[in-house]
Amino acid sequence: MNRLRYAVSLSYEVRDDMADFLLNIEAASTPRQSVVSERLEISPELEAAHYTDPVLANRLLRLRAPQGRLGIRYEAIVDIDHYLEDGAKLSEVPIAELPFDVLPYLAPSRYCESDRLMEFANREFGGMQTGYARVYAIREWVRNHVRFLSRSTNERTSAADTVVERTGVCRDFAHLMIALCRALSIPTRMSSSLDYGADVRMGAPDFHAVVEIYLSHRWYLLDPSGISIPTGLLRIGTGRDAGDIPFAAIFGKVESERPLVEIEPLTDAAAGIGMPVFTPKAISTW
Amino acid sequence: MNRLRYAVSLSYEVRDDMADFLLNIEAASTPRQSVVSERLEISPELEAAHYTDPVLANRLLRLRAPQGRLGIRYEAIVDIDHYLEDGAKLSEVPIAELPFDVLPYLAPSRYCESDRLMEFANREFGGMQTGYARVYAIREWVRNHVRFLSRSTNERTSAADTVVERTGVCRDFAHLMIALCRALSIPTRMSSSLDYGADVRMGAPDFHAVVEIYLSHRWYLLDPSGISIPTGLLRIGTGRDAGDIPFAAIFGKVESERPLVEIEPLTDAAAGIGMPVFTPKAISTW
Amino acid sequence: MNRLRYAVSLSYEVRDDMADFLLNIEAASTPRQSVVSERLEISPELEAAHYTDPVLANRLLRLRAPQGRLGIRYEAIVDIDHYLEDGAKLSEVPIAELPFDVLPYLAPSRYCESDRLMEFANREFGGMQTGYARVYAIREWVRNHVRFLSRSTNERTSAADTVVERTGVCRDFAHLMIALCRALSIPTRMSSSLDYGADVRMGAPDFHAVVEIYLSHRWYLLDPSGISIPTGLLRIGTGRDAGDIPFAAIFGKVESERPLVEIEPLTDAAAGIGMPVFTPKAISTW
Amino acid sequence: MNRLRYAVSLSYEVRDDMADFLLNIEAASTPRQSVVSERLEISPELEAAHYTDPVLANRLLRLRAPQGRLGIRYEAIVDIDHYLEDGAKLSEVPIAELPFDVLPYLAPSRYCESDRLMEFANREFGGMQTGYARVYAIREWVRNHVRFLSRSTNERTSAADTVVERTGVCRDFAHLMIALCRALSIPTRMSSSLDYGADVRMGAPDFHAVVEIYLSHRWYLLDPSGISIPTGLLRIGTGRDAGDIPFAAIFGKVESERPLVEIEPLTDAAAGIGMPVFTPKAISTW
Repeated sequence: MNRLRYAVSLSYEVRDDMADFLLNIEAASTPRQSVVSERLEISPELEAAHYTDPVLANRLLRLRAPQGRLGIRYEAIVDIDHYLEDGAKLSEVPIAELPFDVLPYLAPSRYCESDRLMEFANREFGGMQTGYARVYAIREWVRNHVRFLSRSTNERTSAADTVVERTGVCRDFAHLMIALCRALSIPTRMSSSLDYGADVRMGAPDFHAVVEIYLSHRWYLLDPSGISIPTGLLRIGTGRDAGDIPFAAIFGKVESERPLVEIEPLTDAAAGIGMPVFTPKAISTW
Repeated sequence: MNRLRYAVSLSYEVRDDMADFLLNIEAASTPRQSVVSERLEISPELEAAHYTDPVLANRLLRLRAPQGRLGIRYEAIVDIDHYLEDGAKLSEVPIAELPFDVLPYLAPSRYCESDRLMEFANREFGGMQTGYARVYAIREWVRNHVRFLSRSTNERTSAADTVVERTGVCRDFAHLMIALCRALSIPTRMSSSLDYGADVRMGAPDFHAVVEIYLSHRWYLLDPSGISIPTGLLRIGTGRDAGDIPFAAIFGKVESERPLVEIEPLTDAAAGIGMPVFTPKAISTW
Repeated sequence: MNRLRYAVSLSYEVRDDMADFLLNIEAASTPRQSVVSERLEISPELEAAHYTDPVLANRLLRLRAPQGRLGIRYEAIVDIDHYLEDGAKLSEVPIAELPFDVLPYLAPSRYCESDRLMEFANREFGGMQTGYARVYAIREWVRNHVRFLSRSTNERTSAADTVVERTGVCRDFAHLMIALCRALSIPTRMSSSLDYGADVRMGAPDFHAVVEIYLSHRWYLLDPSGISIPTGLLRIGTGRDAGDIPFAAIFGKVESERPLVEIEPLTDAAAGIGMPVFTPKAISTW
Repeated sequence: MNRLRYAVSLSYEVRDDMADFLLNIEAASTPRQSVVSERLEISPELEAAHYTDPVLANRLLRLRAPQGRLGIRYEAIVDIDHYLEDGAKLSEVPIAELPFDVLPYLAPSRYCESDRLMEFANREFGGMQTGYARVYAIREWVRNHVRFLSRSTNERTSAADTVVERTGVCRDFAHLMIALCRALSIPTRMSSSLDYGADVRMGAPDFHAVVEIYLSHRWYLLDPSGISIPTGLLRIGTGRDAGDIPFAAIFGKVESERPLVEIEPLTDAAAGIGMPVFTPKAISTW
């Protein structure tokens, strides 16, 4: 089991009379991730509406802030009890056996144009042995064919752009892997977290986007950018792609500062809590 | 109230050993649409799994068909008790008051790149009086700036393409209107139905895509293509865009014939059931 | 040497009072291609302006036709004295030594977005030994990663689309190869001809688009679609991409029939004229 | 007549052993623009090849620089004897009367997808009285429907993107206007110059992209971004779009600094040389 301390500070300057915020920054509670403790501070003090999506466990915070400074700080201690499985035992689930609520993750979405990548995905990966090995091969293909390059893309960049331009950041890697998997009829979605394990040379800790694949009736986590240690990924949001799970959707004229993120492991040998480490096994946190 | 008889016949030739089908052809049951009677025939006789989405009321039919001919015929009689409202009374719902489960209809989706249309939508419609009048102005803008032209687009065409190329069919009109509304932070989704009222010169009756807008805490129906009589629209599917609600998603090598669709009004003066007619009022079927 | 008989019949119905046509259907005269005889018939009889591009040798025919039927038939006998060279002897020309009038073929063009394919081209082909071997490897990559599929694309499809969608016809293969070569700073252009050697199962003879690469101070011909016999390619137009060399650009309301094309070898053993055959050598017709 | 002093300083750090540069920074000599004096300094001293395009008058400077610092400074005094004409007297030239060498400016190019904008251009501007009034209306449409926003686009942004996203810088305004004019069969090209007259609040003087339209057998200059005083535009390059006339095309690993540009009027009442001023007349510098 891993225990992580996560904190995020958001800082805004509202220019309109009022502005609305939808924040998805709180740690999710899932069958395998539990929030040990957490604290939310909003300054100035404002009432915020809370909502937890009954299926995806996303926690939304909605607030309306008046003109001026807005600061939000959230801090949590979270336990993740990873489900680890030998990849060789995982298989793709036939369409006929997919739970109905998994079917939407076969459809194309804003940043994952799987409908345009059918021929490519089938040509490149269609003949492979199916299962985790194939999914991992797609992850490797993306990691080996796209260059991680900060500021080479923007929030409108999609998987189709990345197939052409071959540069991007974590969300671009994730979108491309999602699109390729869906093009092969493998349900795939995005999970947002923090980039635990990322090289400090890449800059301060930041939000991170990774991929979840539905295999053997469970969602498995993969990071096609290769910059994180997957067992250190603390789930915040889950959705079809980045369009579903922005950490902040803002309505109104607002100036934003870059979010300040902290993520650190809290080990406790007595309680059986260790450091997040790389594992050759398939990892699920759901 | 309107009563409609709807029938659809699908005809496939499965080339692989087996192929999977996800069909969304059955009439939905909503607070204002009820299925009076229905019948489904599959030939050869096959077991089909049925699923109704608890939120959207979409009815999915899943089946696995062996090599050879597959025929599906569905027929239903459906009553629609429209909710009609004076458009002038309808207002856009502030972000702070939107139900949480309506928020996904603010996000961009595969065929509705609202994130790319922000500047355009705000420049063109941002200064207008908000509410049904503004939504109707967007509907009129789309209808007047895009030419209905069969076969000018394909199933990969998106709202951004339509802004550039200005031709399309019903789904292209709908995608563009959806994208523009979402760019203005108005929750908007797609509804699939039949093109009741379409000029016979446009060819045989067909599936039809229209738009639903969330105003005054209710979803209102608009057809930006202008080819249908909206009170004759019988709801089949509801989703973010056409990617969510194909009438048939097919997995495997299959040859398809064009679906044969029938739609006709069943009037009954004694029961207070009339012909679908144009109305200046805002129409809701939810 | 090869001698070919080529004929094309174009048939139009002008709906406006008048319509303008720019036709690029006549066989080009180049240092290695000579027109032995030719005949042009326009019905009704109309005056046509003729223009030959001094650099590219494209022959344009401009005419203005009144409402009604317009028929054009062009027929030519053409000799091609191919320059054949061992590919191993051909090298890429350093930027510093390129003739200035070759430089435009390094720039991106409408259907060849080489500027977007830099990372991809360099990653895939950047480390290869340069010269004909590299160019041929690009040709093979395109042929092996794109599926020839009639009607899968349209006249707006570009190289970036083909990288994503991986299907297309001859012009799509050519555009992608051109874009990849330019992304590597190899001057590359398009040549239009007839699809000599194409399998009759692909349908009637048709116009064909192939690629010319500038190596060792000469333009070499390659067909990335692989459907033609390159020594049977009779040059009609030369340009940056298909946008430069349509066989017909039409201004006004006109209905077009599919052009009827004939292409056949005229062998003459006595004169040393043989059948076009495949050769492992690099081929130039300039 | 106007006399302008223009200077540009380019500064590079070559990281490879050698890098190649193609520079288009020198003032063009056209029938109405003459270079009074000029000076070019390259440091370290390097041999440069010079080329002047016989048709477009673009002056290319090609040089090969070794690893290390490369500095280039060009300075010129240039006279422009504008041809001014009453716009009402200018008409669009029928296809049948266009010089053949003007025809390429009807075709779509990398950043000007006129082929995709046919329906839009015809719907919006097709019914207008043709001639300068229509061209000016297109210029006004672009200026009024796109927001000048630094850094909102990049060097891959095209006219089709700008129709969707409605923000950009001078080259985006120019590309969109060019694409719209070509979609109406009006020959249109790009001219690069300096942004004479631009508000100092927009930052230091910079290269600038404007539009040239072929009317009444002459090329007329328009700035759809509206930021310059057109009579102060000193021609550097002329081409189909920005892809043809980059001020610097660089081959090799090179770090670039932002070019430093100076542009100032040199008035001389005795010689009849005044300040560039706005004029309601149509302006040609060719």
